[in-house]
Amino acid sequence: MSHTARLLISCPDARGVVASVTSFIHDRGGNIVDLDQHVDPDSNAFFMRVEVERGTLDIGPGEFDESFAPVRERFLLNARCEWCDRPKRVAIFVSQEDHCLADLLWRFGRGELGGEAGGEVVGVISNHEVCRAQVEAGGLAFHHLPVTPETKAEQERTAMALLGELDVDLVILARYMQVLTPRFVAAYPSRIINIHHSFLPAFAGARPYHRAHERGVKLIGATSHYVTDELDEGPIIAQRTAGVTHRDAVADLVRKGRDLERLVLAEAARVHLDDRVLTLGRRTVVFG
Amino acid sequence: MSHTARLLISCPDARGVVASVTSFIHDRGGNIVDLDQHVDPDSNAFFMRVEVERGTLDIGPGEFDESFAPVRERFLLNARCEWCDRPKRVAIFVSQEDHCLADLLWRFGRGELGGEAGGEVVGVISNHEVCRAQVEAGGLAFHHLPVTPETKAEQERTAMALLGELDVDLVILARYMQVLTPRFVAAYPSRIINIHHSFLPAFAGARPYHRAHERGVKLIGATSHYVTDELDEGPIIAQRTAGVTHRDAVADLVRKGRDLERLVLAEAARVHLDDRVLTLGRRTVVFG
Amino acid sequence: MSHTARLLISCPDARGVVASVTSFIHDRGGNIVDLDQHVDPDSNAFFMRVEVERGTLDIGPGEFDESFAPVRERFLLNARCEWCDRPKRVAIFVSQEDHCLADLLWRFGRGELGGEAGGEVVGVISNHEVCRAQVEAGGLAFHHLPVTPETKAEQERTAMALLGELDVDLVILARYMQVLTPRFVAAYPSRIINIHHSFLPAFAGARPYHRAHERGVKLIGATSHYVTDELDEGPIIAQRTAGVTHRDAVADLVRKGRDLERLVLAEAARVHLDDRVLTLGRRTVVFG
Amino acid sequence: MSHTARLLISCPDARGVVASVTSFIHDRGGNIVDLDQHVDPDSNAFFMRVEVERGTLDIGPGEFDESFAPVRERFLLNARCEWCDRPKRVAIFVSQEDHCLADLLWRFGRGELGGEAGGEVVGVISNHEVCRAQVEAGGLAFHHLPVTPETKAEQERTAMALLGELDVDLVILARYMQVLTPRFVAAYPSRIINIHHSFLPAFAGARPYHRAHERGVKLIGATSHYVTDELDEGPIIAQRTAGVTHRDAVADLVRKGRDLERLVLAEAARVHLDDRVLTLGRRTVVFG
Repeated sequence: MSHTARLLISCPDARGVVASVTSFIHDRGGNIVDLDQHVDPDSNAFFMRVEVERGTLDIGPGEFDESFAPVRERFLLNARCEWCDRPKRVAIFVSQEDHCLADLLWRFGRGELGGEAGGEVVGVISNHEVCRAQVEAGGLAFHHLPVTPETKAEQERTAMALLGELDVDLVILARYMQVLTPRFVAAYPSRIINIHHSFLPAFAGARPYHRAHERGVKLIGATSHYVTDELDEGPIIAQRTAGVTHRDAVADLVRKGRDLERLVLAEAARVHLDDRVLTLGRRTVVFG
Repeated sequence: MSHTARLLISCPDARGVVASVTSFIHDRGGNIVDLDQHVDPDSNAFFMRVEVERGTLDIGPGEFDESFAPVRERFLLNARCEWCDRPKRVAIFVSQEDHCLADLLWRFGRGELGGEAGGEVVGVISNHEVCRAQVEAGGLAFHHLPVTPETKAEQERTAMALLGELDVDLVILARYMQVLTPRFVAAYPSRIINIHHSFLPAFAGARPYHRAHERGVKLIGATSHYVTDELDEGPIIAQRTAGVTHRDAVADLVRKGRDLERLVLAEAARVHLDDRVLTLGRRTVVFG
Repeated sequence: MSHTARLLISCPDARGVVASVTSFIHDRGGNIVDLDQHVDPDSNAFFMRVEVERGTLDIGPGEFDESFAPVRERFLLNARCEWCDRPKRVAIFVSQEDHCLADLLWRFGRGELGGEAGGEVVGVISNHEVCRAQVEAGGLAFHHLPVTPETKAEQERTAMALLGELDVDLVILARYMQVLTPRFVAAYPSRIINIHHSFLPAFAGARPYHRAHERGVKLIGATSHYVTDELDEGPIIAQRTAGVTHRDAVADLVRKGRDLERLVLAEAARVHLDDRVLTLGRRTVVFG
Repeated sequence: MSHTARLLISCPDARGVVASVTSFIHDRGGNIVDLDQHVDPDSNAFFMRVEVERGTLDIGPGEFDESFAPVRERFLLNARCEWCDRPKRVAIFVSQEDHCLADLLWRFGRGELGGEAGGEVVGVISNHEVCRAQVEAGGLAFHHLPVTPETKAEQERTAMALLGELDVDLVILARYMQVLTPRFVAAYPSRIINIHHSFLPAFAGARPYHRAHERGVKLIGATSHYVTDELDEGPIIAQRTAGVTHRDAVADLVRKGRDLERLVLAEAARVHLDDRVLTLGRRTVVFG
């Protein structure tokens, strides 16, 4: 658990926002540990992330909203404060390919994404049984929700109920091969992260490695993004590519791609858990 | 000018091709300096590049075809021998953006692509006047062929006649913003290299950096490829990407992209001049 | 020329610095366009860069020091304000290899480093004649200061006098193969940028590509850094690497390295001209 | 288990080697699946890797040496044939950091390094107990050989005896923090792979991430290499780097470095198991 709170702000750009917000924090005894801001030149939207030590801050979660209201109203701020008083509760969805799952479990287990880093896996949900053993070996709950065309709607309701019970903050789709319905997506806005195995927007949709091979590209990629109603069209959080040659068959692309997928999904999870991501339409601001 | 000849072969895969071809070379006194081969597992097509010292070879360009005929016929080889007895003659097409042009002229002038490396710029053709000074400063001929919708067909015929007179082996489109007609393309199969300012197949067509920015990608790219009749669909020779962040406006993407374009176009020119590229449909084999 | 001023601050970390500085700016009518800050956890040093629109700022270069004194004294700030009322005056030193020089001249000439971007080349100094033509072709002054062991001391004095006359703000060593004396270095603290053709600290000193090849590394690199009295030990601004294989001879390493050198030197020049670099001992803070 | 045999050859470069070797294979009914060769221009050493389908080959392990003797003697070949009739037997050494171990176990378990790919983990040896559970959970033997200055010599003898019993072909040091003695190293020439957490030759020795941070580098790296008697001086198989910024503390370098280490060690294991690596002094030839 972090000893800091993070204030995330977006608003129409205006003179004096930084000074007003930082003075507000200073006046409440807060020490600014990290501050990053950005103005999008096209939309004139202003974004800021301020990380504040909680130790000397003389207000807490209960008082913040009222206390901050004058600043918020003056600048029409869209603001939220992450108090970090508990780790974010994470559910991982997976189908049969376990490379991202295994990687995430390692990272959460060793403190790279968990503990101080802010996350805790509270359950793994799968439409297959193959990953049960490794999940349970780590002392985590594994929920098998098999999906057929007939049961898909009902199983998604079951999954959503489960997420509600588990009080989940973040859903990670670690190669989960089912498309979520708009209802599910709407319940977790900018809180469902997917990994797609191509450098989007190239090869959106199915079988990207096969199509990349057919097209004869000289690099492959992976993309992590927030899920929206349009398939593979959500705001991109991280992307990577790696070179391939004529010697690489589809199976080599798949193998090389797994390394990219692991890295790119873990990176997205890390910056999300660290409250570093804000969205602007189909784009993201990811503060370093 | 190189002291080697390069034999390029493609054929249906068969037992004994490598042994037969290398024995043929050995029996004619040739010393193999470099050999690379590849079998495409999908099509079962076999590709080979053999580089041979010419010094002790007891046959020359005149005798090769007849001498090699038995091997060629036995394995149904598609074979060509590049004797490298003169530098490849290169024409560069450019419009107004000169970063690729300036880079190529430097590389040809300093021997990175020219001289021993196999190429010689015999002319620069442009639909604008802006690059004339720097081309002529390097002692090269600059041909201004302005294009309007009305004159486009005629100017292309003029350009083709000029290429014929100059006995051009390779055409490099260094940010030439006109689409070539099928007639032009057919005259130089696998001998016209274009640079596209995106990681194809993403953002094929116009204004790729603007579209990349709108989509919110976290990397941009550049692609060099042979030109075919389908726009931005030709066999890819080289690709690179570079990371971008929310701080990068379109102008930054354009700036970062210029570096990628230069590198990727120069790389394609280098491997082509070195006779390292073979095509298989929309894919290329680029021998290292 | 930019329409903004940049305030660069370092100090021991303390509560309230950000609030005080941003309020100071806001109270003088300034609009903060960009703010970035960093606290080094080891030394507890605080760094900040604030970019402010000059249009509505009610103080100018003449009044800043006195006006800002209370904030400066309260937090023991080390502060400087770059008013950007003229482009930074840049001198380029080069020996015989011209790839970095040609690249920089292109970038300054096309506005990537010059004009709005903040720099202007006011002269090129070389201990050889080979680059004269291309420098003068660009309308720039070329100063030939040949160096022998006997004349080295005197020629450096001549060079320093020339830099003084030219009122130079930044010196770029674009593959200048002479070591500068401490006197020269002391005259331009954090204002001389060098390119070294290895990923420092590996292969500091002479012939790095040869030594890289002998060692059998699988990647080569380039490093741009501020020059200090210790050879190749100054604060690093930018570094890049590229993969090499057993097929790459020393000449290939040199060729691939040139691409890295160009990119890494240009990147260092760009962030320096943009006032994005602060130093902390042998390290740099390079604000994105 | 592969259906091919791999013939690995090095010799002084000579006319006719390729033709003689490929004719030899062809005459014994072998179909060449892959051939790669290289001539080192400095030493004039010739290297070749030929992969041959075993199905139609009319000689086997028993007859090869005698049958191939004439070719071997004529060209002074240093030749070995890997018949691939059993997976290579791999022992992994680890201390307390388990990121490379966990990654390797995943890759061997899922067939990326094991099975067809040629390897099989036959035991994990550690001077600590911490990794026992995850090794045994995978059904593998875990051998705890704690080391103190007093017991070091004896424990290494025990380890060597164990490797002998297990008939080990390859030793992977997956962050094993003990230096092996010359006796151990001599027993497994070019068959012990280590991962070093820096881009060698920079930061050889202890605590590379701390030293990288102190030096203020802008990239970190990882290097996999064969172990020789000189610490961190063995032939390099693979290297990678990743960018870092002033925001990255030592802990961030360690975190980012883990990703590099995993990838670089797995890559080395893969090319070694695939018999793609030959050494030439401190350098390696790694056939693509």
